[in-house]
Amino acid sequence: MNSMQAVEGSAGDLGAIMNGLGHAAAASRAALAQSSGATRNAALLAAAQAIRANAATIIAANARDMEAARARGLSVAMLDRLQLNDKRVESMAAGIEQIAALDDPIGGVSAEWSRPNGLTIQRVRVPLGVIGIIYESRPNVTADAGALCLKSANPVILRGGSESRFSSAAIHDCLVAGLRAAGLPEAAIQLVPTTDRAAVGMMLAGLDQQINVIVPRGGRSLVERVQKEARVPVIGHLEGLCHVYVDRDADADMARSIVVNAKLRRTGICGSAETLLVDRACAPSMLPMLLNALADGGCELRGDAATQAVDKRVKAATEQDWRTEYLDAIISVRVVDGVDEAIRHIATYGSAHTDSIVTANAATAEKFLREVDSAIVLHNASTQFADGGEFGMGAEIGISTDRFHARGPVGVEQLTSYKYVVRGSGQVRPG
Amino acid sequence: MNSMQAVEGSAGDLGAIMNGLGHAAAASRAALAQSSGATRNAALLAAAQAIRANAATIIAANARDMEAARARGLSVAMLDRLQLNDKRVESMAAGIEQIAALDDPIGGVSAEWSRPNGLTIQRVRVPLGVIGIIYESRPNVTADAGALCLKSANPVILRGGSESRFSSAAIHDCLVAGLRAAGLPEAAIQLVPTTDRAAVGMMLAGLDQQINVIVPRGGRSLVERVQKEARVPVIGHLEGLCHVYVDRDADADMARSIVVNAKLRRTGICGSAETLLVDRACAPSMLPMLLNALADGGCELRGDAATQAVDKRVKAATEQDWRTEYLDAIISVRVVDGVDEAIRHIATYGSAHTDSIVTANAATAEKFLREVDSAIVLHNASTQFADGGEFGMGAEIGISTDRFHARGPVGVEQLTSYKYVVRGSGQVRPG
Repeated sequence: MNSMQAVEGSAGDLGAIMNGLGHAAAASRAALAQSSGATRNAALLAAAQAIRANAATIIAANARDMEAARARGLSVAMLDRLQLNDKRVESMAAGIEQIAALDDPIGGVSAEWSRPNGLTIQRVRVPLGVIGIIYESRPNVTADAGALCLKSANPVILRGGSESRFSSAAIHDCLVAGLRAAGLPEAAIQLVPTTDRAAVGMMLAGLDQQINVIVPRGGRSLVERVQKEARVPVIGHLEGLCHVYVDRDADADMARSIVVNAKLRRTGICGSAETLLVDRACAPSMLPMLLNALADGGCELRGDAATQAVDKRVKAATEQDWRTEYLDAIISVRVVDGVDEAIRHIATYGSAHTDSIVTANAATAEKFLREVDSAIVLHNASTQFADGGEFGMGAEIGISTDRFHARGPVGVEQLTSYKYVVRGSGQVRPG
Repeated sequence: MNSMQAVEGSAGDLGAIMNGLGHAAAASRAALAQSSGATRNAALLAAAQAIRANAATIIAANARDMEAARARGLSVAMLDRLQLNDKRVESMAAGIEQIAALDDPIGGVSAEWSRPNGLTIQRVRVPLGVIGIIYESRPNVTADAGALCLKSANPVILRGGSESRFSSAAIHDCLVAGLRAAGLPEAAIQLVPTTDRAAVGMMLAGLDQQINVIVPRGGRSLVERVQKEARVPVIGHLEGLCHVYVDRDADADMARSIVVNAKLRRTGICGSAETLLVDRACAPSMLPMLLNALADGGCELRGDAATQAVDKRVKAATEQDWRTEYLDAIISVRVVDGVDEAIRHIATYGSAHTDSIVTANAATAEKFLREVDSAIVLHNASTQFADGGEFGMGAEIGISTDRFHARGPVGVEQLTSYKYVVRGSGQVRPG
């Protein structure tokens, strides 16, 4: 935290600070790439221990952040995301230990073949390079993201939200203690020591020779800024405008439980459903029951005319509703003419994140799974399974809605690249 | 070709033209993604037939390009790259047939697992999306790139060099005939019908909602423009500054044949070696022999002081020589203190493309293969194997020096993304 305090208000030095971070990160790449998985795991376990041992310090730093945040009038929801307590600190430490327990994503052979001329070719996993992560004021992301990048042998430059600056710095100190304990370069995990927003601009464009990929984790304004300014490849996390389509051949009980879970289990995560599409063929029987279940769960209902006709509580949905990620207990509901119109609606309004069909008809399900062009498509399961942990991939850095490099949950394997290792016995290329 | 002639000189309409191409490509995405591999192969085979049937038309169009190119005083090497003849046209057709014969890269399951809650998860290959390819005046790239994108179900917007405009348009007509014969959307393969260089700018930035990835194929000035202007993900093809390191434990005959092949088999391809590094421990015995073999092959020699001391023909290499992709019969030679200094030299001056070690020492070889951070690292084999065909991947669109998405040879598999298909029986997420 001392380094952070030292640069408060010294925005004039920003270029020098950011260049220093970039060069230090790039300089640590080779050592990190050549380190063993055991060494990186030792650093992770030492970092988890340091977080436990320094829980009081972290919580005291967090109290400073909370005080400033209250003074600035942050919403209750944002204050809740920012707040740390003993349980949340322990959960961060345990999360790092879980990442340590994952298989080593580096050095493995993902494909291997030989050629008629006797050359053998292996495709070997290597780190992606220096990763820049720009995130909002969730202190736990400092621990998660730092640990995922270390596990995958990528140096990382973390740029957290200004509201969590003291919490993040205290957590970062523990990560660095872990690196030091394992003899790894401290520059493997760096935290931008200034809240100057121009630092984000430098990460997006000014350090394109040092930073290999940017991961933005935040709301629409951050994503739009990244899309506009980035000169560096981006693993993007757009909004999750997720749909559940209830088909004419759906089982009613299953439809109800999936719709309620997809919308209401947690409304603030990217895999929560925002729009319910109901097949016109089963709307008379299914729609009243689904609307009742949602309303009973405390959900506000907005819908098209056909939906409003069924239930007086349904407000009229506007064109904008179909495009809105509520992240709240609100759902938009539309009656569609079968799976084809459902697929068209999702293609028009969805964000290619996660979409689910409920049906007992295998052919209809396969059509939906094939034609809906989203990172995750589900049959007879809740959209809230859109999560690296639920996929069995361990922790994730987010859900990518890009098609390039990584799509869907971004875990440690998605933070790797590869190289081809070719072994011969003197082969030269003829002709 | 009529459409190209129609817009000559109508640069004012460029925005409308490019937007039209972008929207047509995007609109064809779903139909192409849902088409069967058999349908896409039928289109490829029909295109190959159309190229054969229209060989005279293509060669006549090429004669117009050649005439204009001679009038503009293009170099002999560039004229040779531009020129088509019966043999080269047949080779284009055969190349498309080879692409048709490759396995379908789309729809395959690249990973599959199930979860304790009974969900099954498949990772399924899907197209990448609309690809923009910007290339120089090699008419055959129109055929190759169009065919690779069609094979992988990606709509493509081709922007060839202005010198090959009539040749490319004639070849493009044949590709479209193939699409038409198979009932696929003609917008699946579009050729920018104007030589206005501002079209490239629109592909890099203005069509970012329609184009999913840009593949630049060209020299340094194109690559630099792309790096500066692109708002779309890029599969980059930087220069191939490839090295051969001859270690103290190398077999002399093998070293000679690999060095000569790596440098001189073809000097104009990206996998040709530009720099020879020789271990000081074997320089007295090995270096005179290697320099003789290169000089006998017509290669100009440039070297450090230690190399110059061995052979009077060696000119002094400047700092710039270590950074130069000659693409010509010129080599820079340096004596290094063993594998560690060789690795450091490659890290400092290389382009992370392709590098080879010649040694009979397995431990030294493994150190080199592990620590040299290039897309392709070879042991006892020529750098000229850096080629998708030589890797057994079939045709390629180039060699990527990026770490993101695709690295090394970019064949049809590297032009895909994936989606997760999750099948359940009513699972909802607890907690």
